[in-house]
Order: sequence, then C-alpha cells, then structure tokens
Amino acid sequence: MARGFKISVPASSANIGPGYDVLGIGLALYLELDVTIDSKAAPETNSDPNNCKLTYSEDSEGATTVPLRSDENLITRTALYVLRCNNVRSFPSGTKVHVHNPIPLGRGLGSSGAAVVAGVMLGNEVGQLGFSKQRMLDYCLMIERHPDNITAAMMGGFAGSFLRELTPAEVERREIPLSEVLPEPSGGDDTGLVPPLPPTDIGHHVKYQWNHKIKCIAIIPDFELSTADSRGVLPKAYTSTDLVFNLQRLAVLTTALTQDPPDPNLIYPAMQDRVHQPYRKTLIPGLTEILSSVTPSTYPGLLGICLSGAGPTILALAVDNFDDIAQEIINRFAKKNVTCRWKVIELAYNGAEVNPL
Amino acid sequence: MARGFKISVPASSANIGPGYDVLGIGLALYLELDVTIDSKAAPETNSDPNNCKLTYSEDSEGATTVPLRSDENLITRTALYVLRCNNVRSFPSGTKVHVHNPIPLGRGLGSSGAAVVAGVMLGNEVGQLGFSKQRMLDYCLMIERHPDNITAAMMGGFAGSFLRELTPAEVERREIPLSEVLPEPSGGDDTGLVPPLPPTDIGHHVKYQWNHKIKCIAIIPDFELSTADSRGVLPKAYTSTDLVFNLQRLAVLTTALTQDPPDPNLIYPAMQDRVHQPYRKTLIPGLTEILSSVTPSTYPGLLGICLSGAGPTILALAVDNFDDIAQEIINRFAKKNVTCRWKVIELAYNGAEVNPL
Repeated sequence: MARGFKISVPASSANIGPGYDVLGIGLALYLELDVTIDSKAAPETNSDPNNCKLTYSEDSEGATTVPLRSDENLITRTALYVLRCNNVRSFPSGTKVHVHNPIPLGRGLGSSGAAVVAGVMLGNEVGQLGFSKQRMLDYCLMIERHPDNITAAMMGGFAGSFLRELTPAEVERREIPLSEVLPEPSGGDDTGLVPPLPPTDIGHHVKYQWNHKIKCIAIIPDFELSTADSRGVLPKAYTSTDLVFNLQRLAVLTTALTQDPPDPNLIYPAMQDRVHQPYRKTLIPGLTEILSSVTPSTYPGLLGICLSGAGPTILALAVDNFDDIAQEIINRFAKKNVTCRWKVIELAYNGAEVNPL
Repeated sequence: MARGFKISVPASSANIGPGYDVLGIGLALYLELDVTIDSKAAPETNSDPNNCKLTYSEDSEGATTVPLRSDENLITRTALYVLRCNNVRSFPSGTKVHVHNPIPLGRGLGSSGAAVVAGVMLGNEVGQLGFSKQRMLDYCLMIERHPDNITAAMMGGFAGSFLRELTPAEVERREIPLSEVLPEPSGGDDTGLVPPLPPTDIGHHVKYQWNHKIKCIAIIPDFELSTADSRGVLPKAYTSTDLVFNLQRLAVLTTALTQDPPDPNLIYPAMQDRVHQPYRKTLIPGLTEILSSVTPSTYPGLLGICLSGAGPTILALAVDNFDDIAQEIINRFAKKNVTCRWKVIELAYNGAEVNPL
C-alpha cells in the first residue's frame, strides 16, 4: 500500500556571539522532503542501489550540484545509517524522496545540520522505528558532533546544549564511521554488518523562552565558507581572560533574550565574543567593521550582531528598523566587493516535524 | 539628631561548577551592621581618626582577628572610599558600627564580597548619598573586580554577571587604588584629594528564576584557603576543548536550575567543570573523590555538587536527603583528617538591605 509524508527541518544559526559550539536558534526557513513509498510502482530504470529515487526542486539551493545517489547524498546516506543500525538494509522498494531546500549551502545557516536531522527523521519514518526526538538526536550526534545546529534544527526555538561524557565502552562503539556502515566504493554492504546502536542520551539541552518580539535578520554574502576552513583559523589555546570574557557574556545572554522588553544595553555587550569571531575576520572581508560599527545607538531597534555559525552570514537581532540595519551591513560588504541577499526570519519554535503529505 | 539603621548583606557561593567568575548565589546567612550616628554623644577615648567606633559581636567569625581601625577594616575602609569619592572626608562624628558576622572567613562563602558590599552601603547611608543598588555595584566593582560574589550579595538570588569593557579614559580613572585614597600610614589624607568617581554601569547582570525547591548544602571544612592561593594554581591557558566543555554546561545549567521539577540527569552533568576545580584538588584533600563519587544515583534528591567559590567549602544542591548527603561528604573529608561543619541554606532572594534599627 502506498504511503506518503512530508518532513520539514528548519535552518539554524549557531554560536550567537559568545556561545561557541553551544547556542543555536532554529530559523523558519525549512528544508522539506516529500516522501512517497509505493512498493507496487514499476521500478525506475537506472534505479538507485538502495531503492531510493531522489530528486530536488529546480529552485533548491545546490539543486545542480548535490549527489543524487542515496548512499552519497547526506540526507539519504544518514537515513541509511539509521536503517542499518536497526537491521534494515535499504529503503523500502518504491521509495521516492523529493527535496526542496531553500537553505543556502556553506553560509553558516545550518544546511548540513538540517540535512542530518532530515536524514535521521527519514530513516525513522521509512523504517517505522518509532523513535522520540531525543533518541533521534543521538543518531544525529553520531554523525555531527557539534550539537548547536543539530539541537536547534531538531528541537526548534533558542537552545543551548552539550554532549555528555561517554563511557569508555560507548566511545569504542561510537567511533564506527559512516563509511564503514556503507563501505566504499559499492555503497552497499555485502557483509551484512549491523552497525552498533548509538549510546542513549548523548545530547542534553535546554530551550530558552525567547522573547517573540525579537526577529532575526540574516545578511547572506554570496560566497561559501566551509566549516572546516572556518574552524582551521581558530587557536588551539585561549587565555583565561578570554575564556572568562565569553563565559560571563554567555551566562547573561541566554536569559537577556527572554526578558521583556529586550534591553539593548544588556544584549549588545553580552553578544561580544573573543573565542571565534576575532579569528574569522581574515576569512570574511568587512567583518571587523560590521561587528564594531553597527550599534543600537546608531540603529535604534538593533539588539545585537554576530556571525551566524561559522559564517559568512551575519545575524542581527532586532525589534525594529530591519531594512536600515540590513542595508548598512550590505553597504559595508559592498565596499569589500561582496554582494549579499538578506531576510528577516522568525524563529522555528517547533523544530523538525513530520506531517501527512 | 541621632539616627540608626541596620545593613544586612548575604553570604554567597560563586562559580557553581562551570560558571567560573560568572555565577553567584546569594545565601541566607547575613553579615549585619547595626549603625548609630549621634553627634551629641561624648567622644570616645582612643577615638578612631575617622570618627567611627567599630565593634564586633563576640560570636562573629574573625571577631578576635579583624582590624578595628576604620581605615584598616575592609568594611569601613570601603565606606571611607565611597565617602571620599563624594567629597566627604570621614564618618559623621558619633558614628558607631557594631558588626555581627556569621560568614566563615576564607572558606569560599563570599565573606570579603559581603564586606565590600556592606562597606559601600554603609558609605552611601552615612553620607546620605542616595545611590541605587546598580550605582553601588559600580563602587563595589572598583574594589573587587570579580563580579560573581559581589553581584549575588548585592542583588540576591541566583545571578550571572559580567563587567563591561571600559573606555581608555575610564581605565585610567579606575586604576586609582584604595591605598592612595587612604594613604598609608596615617589613614588620613592631608592633601584633601578627592578620588575620581567610578565609571557608571560597570557591571551587567541577570537574575535567573531559581526553583525554590532547590536548597543549598554548604559543607565547610575547618581550614582557610585564600582566594589568591586558590587562583595561583590555575593555568594561564586552556584548550578549546575545555573551554567549550564549560561554555556548553554553563549555558544549560542556568536555565536547568529554573525548571520544575529540577532534573538531576540534566543538572548533575551540567555542573561539571574543567576550568578551576580540577586544578584546586591539590589544595583541598578529598575533593577529587567527593566530586566524582557523590551522585544522584547514590543519593536521591541530590542535583549537583561543586566547589563553593575558591573553596574549600563544598556546595551541594538538593531537594531532599540533606543529612545523608552532608554526612557522606563529611565522612570523605574525615578520611583526609579534615573536620567540617555544615548547613542547609536557603537563597537570599532580595540581596543586601538597609532597614531601620
């Protein structure tokens, strides 16, 4: 019997100034998967080795470049990992996944986090595994060890998270990479190996009661920055002064963003960072000037400004004056010959969802 | 005309695991000053050079060791600093300050933070300066640059705080030490110099909505540890792994302690620290075992356990089983030949107060 469902997973912004690898905000810009399973459908020619026909909408970000083989595409490869952990070898025959992705790739808006979350939910649904979101988070965190984007995309809203310390036995179990689950080059697994289940409750998180008056302005430069490159410029060690600087601001920021009315005199300084943004200036032309010159006193309504994730997107939090704030940042990028687009985005308060088609 | 008032300032516990130099909890154990000013009273023999007759109750902590000259005692010396910044040279004639201090000295319970806060409030009251708590915090932070205990003692409850970055002009102004305000050895100032006023709004803070079901158990070893010694063992630099470890837990902890019911599976791991506690084990016999072995699974009702401030006091947060938790920790200290006393303490939700006598 045919069945179908839609998976929606929000974009996300991580770090938010001092909360490096900690904070994430789910953004109402959704990666969507329309999934149908019809075992009676005639097999496709050039069919996928794992029974999954994958397509992207023409206007999707990365539509012409993302791989469409199910064991190469991050979404379906992640779904296969979940299925194989649970002793299911491939997608049910007649599985079709049509992806619509409006999340720009490589811009610091959580596109790969959303893909991993969508993949785990896809595996859970097609395999009818019945996992809770908390359990699905464990699977996500086996693939992506930074919990900030993942937690925000799965749980929604404004979240802070950490990975618990794993026991030696668990560490041994978690070190099996996806490549062994899906050995190269065949994309199949003739040994019938069942990968170990993830440890339980790897991720811990809280959701903060974000003040709904605060909107996110994303100013998105027209160039990509890989997270690996953006991590590569960071130092190996930090002074205790810089460490305390971030700890203090992080502790204040999470609660400051829940207060009403939001106080720019508290939020703006609490969004300052000394752990990642100063080192990423070399990768993002104009960043120094943007972070230091666009302030609540020059732009009333602005609350704070930071790099979104690893960049290059700039995230401004504001209650008013969205056009002017965005235009000022766009102008500053333009002086460095960087063009941008921008959006005002609400929070995705509910996180990832599965609904009937 | 004679007047009198009582100043009450709570003890406090700082750090709370990952929140090094950030978090503070005001504790309902109060430093109390009974102050009377009677300009018509006959002058004392051996009178104080600044018109302040200072006494301590016999059962006060440090009753036999604290200096009683007003320019040497931390409380009254701080008050003199506030007065002189505001062009008042000394206490009004006939000032008497009687101190009752139940806060153990040098144990990590904020005794000196309470003394500084009490001193600033004393200066404000006797000088009738009319400062807000926020403004008095600026004066406190000129003397004690770590805002964690100071903020908790002044504002009460469970607080996170940071110092804003000062402008170059302000940095120049703030570097005038108390010793210049009150030059040695006379304790007076014949030049008539008026010290500069502190910059405004040095400290920023938020108060978290602490779940009132959670009580603090303080297990207080019978030896002192100076904050300077306890800071001296800390490293100059930290790995990014340890930095992220603390950032992640701090972000979760502040909100986890507001949730109802409190979740030991979230709070206990969120109170882990890699920034100060591991380095202080050499100074506090038994600390390693206490922090790793007393857990919510062995002691139901326990939520988390940490060093209070720079130690040696252990702070356990719990909703039940207070006697057993305290006794276990006391027994572990006893094996290292350290004797202890202990208290269950509520939060001081209102912070420092001035009331009529």
